[in-house]
Amino acid sequence: MQKTALIMAGGRGERFWPRSRKNMPKQFLSLTDEGKTMIQLTIERLLPIVDVKDIFIATNKDYLALMKEQLPDIPEENIICEPIGRNTAPCIALAAAHISKKYDDAIMMVLPSDHLVKYSSMFQTTLRDACDVAMEGDNLVTIGITPDYPETGYGYIKFVNEYSEGNGRAFKVDSFVEKPDLEKAKEYIASDEYLWNSGMFMWKISTILQKIEAFMPDVYEGIMEIRNALGTSMQEDVLERIFPKFPSISIDYGIMEKAKNIYTIPGTFGWDDVGSWLALERIKRSNEYGNIVDGNIVTINTKNCIIQGTGKLIATVGLDDLIIVDTEDATLICDKDQTYDIKKVLENLKICNRNEYL
Amino acid sequence: MQKTALIMAGGRGERFWPRSRKNMPKQFLSLTDEGKTMIQLTIERLLPIVDVKDIFIATNKDYLALMKEQLPDIPEENIICEPIGRNTAPCIALAAAHISKKYDDAIMMVLPSDHLVKYSSMFQTTLRDACDVAMEGDNLVTIGITPDYPETGYGYIKFVNEYSEGNGRAFKVDSFVEKPDLEKAKEYIASDEYLWNSGMFMWKISTILQKIEAFMPDVYEGIMEIRNALGTSMQEDVLERIFPKFPSISIDYGIMEKAKNIYTIPGTFGWDDVGSWLALERIKRSNEYGNIVDGNIVTINTKNCIIQGTGKLIATVGLDDLIIVDTEDATLICDKDQTYDIKKVLENLKICNRNEYL
Repeated sequence: MQKTALIMAGGRGERFWPRSRKNMPKQFLSLTDEGKTMIQLTIERLLPIVDVKDIFIATNKDYLALMKEQLPDIPEENIICEPIGRNTAPCIALAAAHISKKYDDAIMMVLPSDHLVKYSSMFQTTLRDACDVAMEGDNLVTIGITPDYPETGYGYIKFVNEYSEGNGRAFKVDSFVEKPDLEKAKEYIASDEYLWNSGMFMWKISTILQKIEAFMPDVYEGIMEIRNALGTSMQEDVLERIFPKFPSISIDYGIMEKAKNIYTIPGTFGWDDVGSWLALERIKRSNEYGNIVDGNIVTINTKNCIIQGTGKLIATVGLDDLIIVDTEDATLICDKDQTYDIKKVLENLKICNRNEYL
Repeated sequence: MQKTALIMAGGRGERFWPRSRKNMPKQFLSLTDEGKTMIQLTIERLLPIVDVKDIFIATNKDYLALMKEQLPDIPEENIICEPIGRNTAPCIALAAAHISKKYDDAIMMVLPSDHLVKYSSMFQTTLRDACDVAMEGDNLVTIGITPDYPETGYGYIKFVNEYSEGNGRAFKVDSFVEKPDLEKAKEYIASDEYLWNSGMFMWKISTILQKIEAFMPDVYEGIMEIRNALGTSMQEDVLERIFPKFPSISIDYGIMEKAKNIYTIPGTFGWDDVGSWLALERIKRSNEYGNIVDGNIVTINTKNCIIQGTGKLIATVGLDDLIIVDTEDATLICDKDQTYDIKKVLENLKICNRNEYL
């Protein structure tokens, strides 16, 4: 069966402020030592299993120009612009409608645009396995990540740790669980029955449309109306009229928590969701003092800092465990334990109408 | 007797990097809430006791343009350019030679250019008293500062805590002592016999020249040769030939520690030597979180920080006790307890030949 992919690239990535901005979200940034942007790396690791003409990208129309600039090989008609962000369920429904216009049926892989994978070939093997499972019946497949530590920032997948006939490396999913507190996360890790929810899914177009019809009938109805208008002069008008009315609901909540026949394949391909500046400690090389340093930097008695500069000189004296990010018009200096509060800076700027910094 | 003043303004002020640079030393910076520069404030508080035409300034010739720009009222012939820095003794000797060309004899007040005084009228009263004492015999007078706490960064003056007939508020100086360690400094404070050495001196021109002759005869000889050339076409050549050969010696070491008839007048006029960025805590207003903030700053959970910005946005999250100084081409982020090591940044830049930042 034809393989297609949907890359979800509508996110803001506020946690990478001041590098990420409203007009330059995280997926368009280069955060690794390789120099490529997150979305470029996402496409690159997908190309051995999906033809570029079958890679679809859902994004906000504001990012269309950036998308074309960074991904010149993706056909323009494959860039699906949401009029407004409505979380993952309506986004996936819209993309399924697009793909169903192109193919009677096909495998649809749904992938985030701003995560990293260390071992591409293992990633590709896992996705191929997942596609095989997704071809059977009305299976919904999700990639679970074997946890390294009790992370409280991710959702978890509880799975049935038993070999299930005919499904290769896949395990039956028991349930999806919300982000736990630390104690619960520790229990999950100890139990061997939980994986991290990576937000990567595989299914047939026919399957996901059928599930949307079953569990989100209003969205299904709207999406079918949009589908009928695709390729006509009415396309934009219908999309603008209907899409914003959809509820803002995640695919986890809208479908996965309600459907049956859900399988997970554990991925062990060095996944990282690159959720904050702290991720740089995992994905970039540090120097002998534990500093991760880019730019024009002089450090004196400075340890375990993340310093991301530009051409401007940054000199540090006597610092530990700080994140320093310099850009043309803004500098962030943040305690490593308080990256969660970077959003408070943005709230403050919003309140003061200083939109030039958002 | 005619009152004259020498403002010593040859210093570098590396401890205010990156605001202070080789071509913009501390005395030319505005570090207070008033907006005037250190040297402008120095002149301003002196004007009620010395006529502007009798204020002399010793500096490096590299700073002549800055001096004229910031102090347009000082006669150009009163700006004494040292070919090279040779510490305070040769500097004062050179200025004394200049002044002795103008007046047969005069009172000479020697003052640093980069200190602050909170109560100008008390300062002026103290200086007038000191000048009165300096008029008698061959008295050398120094202004001591009543210490607030056991500072280890200053030299101390040990004085005889007894009323001395005929010298008004002045006390006889027992000795000058080097910067103490903390334990010694505590003893000094406890003993009521020590003042901080402020580097401010008053004497007659005739007295200081006589002391230079007695204690630094080689310097005296050179200075007399320079004096003879002043106002002639040979002036520059003779200065350039002789001055660099002088030993680099402080007036404390060269004269004050050896001479007799030294008096001190305790100053209680809110003196501050503004020795490092930490001084801003004493001279600028802090906000409710203990932060001293100038510029375009957003602080989240940030306490007791000194943040000196420009137009560029600086956002801080979760910081305590840091100094952040942003300039056009360089940003410093320094732990408050390690300001002493800012010079290591400069050493590093020197080694790497990055003179544009010095």
